[in-house]
Amino acid sequence: MIYLDNSATTRPFPQVMTLMADMQQNIFGNPSSLHHAGVLAERAIMQAREQVLEAFGQEDGNFIFTAGGTEANNLAILGTMLSRIHRSPRIITSKIEHPSVMETVLYCKNLGADCHFVEVDSQGQIDEEHFCSLLNEETALVSIMSVNNEVGSMQNIARLSAITKAANPKALFHTDAVQALGKMPLFVKESGADLVSVSSHKIHGPKGAGGLFIRRGIHVKPILFGGGQEKGLRSGTQNTPAIAGFGLATQMTLATMKKDIVQMEQLRLHLQEGLATIAGCQVIKVANPAPHIVCATFPGIRSETLLHALEAQQVYVSSGSACSSNKPQLSPTLLALGYNRKEIEGALRFSLSPQTTLNDINAAIAATKEQVAFLRNV
Amino acid sequence: MIYLDNSATTRPFPQVMTLMADMQQNIFGNPSSLHHAGVLAERAIMQAREQVLEAFGQEDGNFIFTAGGTEANNLAILGTMLSRIHRSPRIITSKIEHPSVMETVLYCKNLGADCHFVEVDSQGQIDEEHFCSLLNEETALVSIMSVNNEVGSMQNIARLSAITKAANPKALFHTDAVQALGKMPLFVKESGADLVSVSSHKIHGPKGAGGLFIRRGIHVKPILFGGGQEKGLRSGTQNTPAIAGFGLATQMTLATMKKDIVQMEQLRLHLQEGLATIAGCQVIKVANPAPHIVCATFPGIRSETLLHALEAQQVYVSSGSACSSNKPQLSPTLLALGYNRKEIEGALRFSLSPQTTLNDINAAIAATKEQVAFLRNV
Repeated sequence: MIYLDNSATTRPFPQVMTLMADMQQNIFGNPSSLHHAGVLAERAIMQAREQVLEAFGQEDGNFIFTAGGTEANNLAILGTMLSRIHRSPRIITSKIEHPSVMETVLYCKNLGADCHFVEVDSQGQIDEEHFCSLLNEETALVSIMSVNNEVGSMQNIARLSAITKAANPKALFHTDAVQALGKMPLFVKESGADLVSVSSHKIHGPKGAGGLFIRRGIHVKPILFGGGQEKGLRSGTQNTPAIAGFGLATQMTLATMKKDIVQMEQLRLHLQEGLATIAGCQVIKVANPAPHIVCATFPGIRSETLLHALEAQQVYVSSGSACSSNKPQLSPTLLALGYNRKEIEGALRFSLSPQTTLNDINAAIAATKEQVAFLRNV
Repeated sequence: MIYLDNSATTRPFPQVMTLMADMQQNIFGNPSSLHHAGVLAERAIMQAREQVLEAFGQEDGNFIFTAGGTEANNLAILGTMLSRIHRSPRIITSKIEHPSVMETVLYCKNLGADCHFVEVDSQGQIDEEHFCSLLNEETALVSIMSVNNEVGSMQNIARLSAITKAANPKALFHTDAVQALGKMPLFVKESGADLVSVSSHKIHGPKGAGGLFIRRGIHVKPILFGGGQEKGLRSGTQNTPAIAGFGLATQMTLATMKKDIVQMEQLRLHLQEGLATIAGCQVIKVANPAPHIVCATFPGIRSETLLHALEAQQVYVSSGSACSSNKPQLSPTLLALGYNRKEIEGALRFSLSPQTTLNDINAAIAATKEQVAFLRNV
């Protein structure tokens, strides 16, 4: 299997699976229980929290475990808005956010928030002029993703958060860093972000864990109600095996990130060059590319058709984003970048991980070349 | 280890752990992905959904997977209220609900809902006269738990839902059945419930999975926004290994439920009789007891003190409910049943599972007798 859909999800590290199996067998207590079985579970969560906090550098703050990146994005946006909703707060986001940000902002809009959507250029970069024109003293929240999940464009979060704070020092800056964790440093001292969402299963951690970094002094309201776990911000028995697995996966990812980025970057360039040699293939170039995402379009071939042709060769890729559960619609991201219907309908995403090899990339290029030629001749 | 805290959480079945490990290794795809790895994951979810739906009988309906029971209760209550919130809907619940119901109803109250809390009698049963007096044609939602998590009282859901529908056929009836799954039949044809919440980790399934049964024709709004997974009702990549584990745990639990209930019932009575022989111990009797929960109070001894004394003997029990994350407060359930401060501060919960043995119970009785005598003489 040549698995190049790592931005959809990854296989957990063997060490993570071993840890989770051990947790399920031996540390299965409820972390809220007062006895030893509960204490062991609580300690595992504390350790995982420290491991994940390393990703954000030495800045003061907390990390709230959620069931995943979607819930973290919901908590960041709804949680900061719920206290201000009666004052029609202003929210700024971009036109290329993940659905878990976009749909949550649209929900806030329905509730009465004053929501604005920043344009991006053809290279997937935030239009700074437009961004500045939308900011004002009423701005309560800005949410801009660190790395786009479809085309891999990275935003300059440090710059955008500085511009935000200059316009209104009280505005909060949130970034969806689900595709960024392990692919770039997320130190919040440098980025200036107040709220950062991440997810475990994109970095060879288990599904069912993610969370939100919250800078010290920032107040967020809960969106789930109950026993008051996670400092009252996320009620519900913590999924301790998944949380412990997320902690370990983060630690392992950070330990090798520097060399992994170099390797993914080389493989990404190699893949882009290989795809560019295929007749009728158009590699979608972005200005500031993340190391692990390649988007290419094959106008005239429907992406689902090519995806299934590649699948038959054991090459697994994605058509647009797998995050939108089977909803057949044109990618808002590619629309915002200015691509036309035919280009968007022919777009495939190849996404790498530190485990991707040169052989994987060469096999994917060869299979794509062969299948495109076959489909063009049909 | 004598683990008698099964209402807090349970150790997963070995078969569940094996299945999850296999899923993580071999079926790790994103169920929203179109390729084979995604299809395998989607099939695993479909199978788990059918396995869990068996618990609710042959009635038409759907089951929405969430990250757990708390999220399911939030979805049931907030999800049914969000569409009606501008009309100040009437919500009826009881005074002995789990925090994930109680706090969610209180949140609805803050949003403008007209919320009422039914009294219970000293045996933990809903005061039907009071219940009837609160129902009217404006009632939008009734939420009454099937089994109380602290004292084990079962409510007559069939009767309460019939009374509700007689008062207003359009009112929805929700029941938190987190402590009921595997301990009593949950067939919704018989109970008349429209919405039923359950959780995986209370029945030897993994943490990180639970969900909501929704009767066909009932409309609930989502409380998390994003990719639209789970028919738009629960966005976020599904935690496929946990969902598959939940499905298998449900299937295994239902297969042996009839004999398990008889066994737990015998052990419960044996435990109650044994505890009743301890000087100064008062077993908290309820009218319609579930087979797996025993609450007893040792007035004059603080429950935490006795809990830790038992812990030193490898006997793990709970002081009140472990669901309220370390919040030191008097149990609202025991207050509603009419117990006084000293009785509540001395209350312990022993909770059984089908895996509990006679040896466990005898060891727990002996350890409790010994530790109570020791603490009384200190």
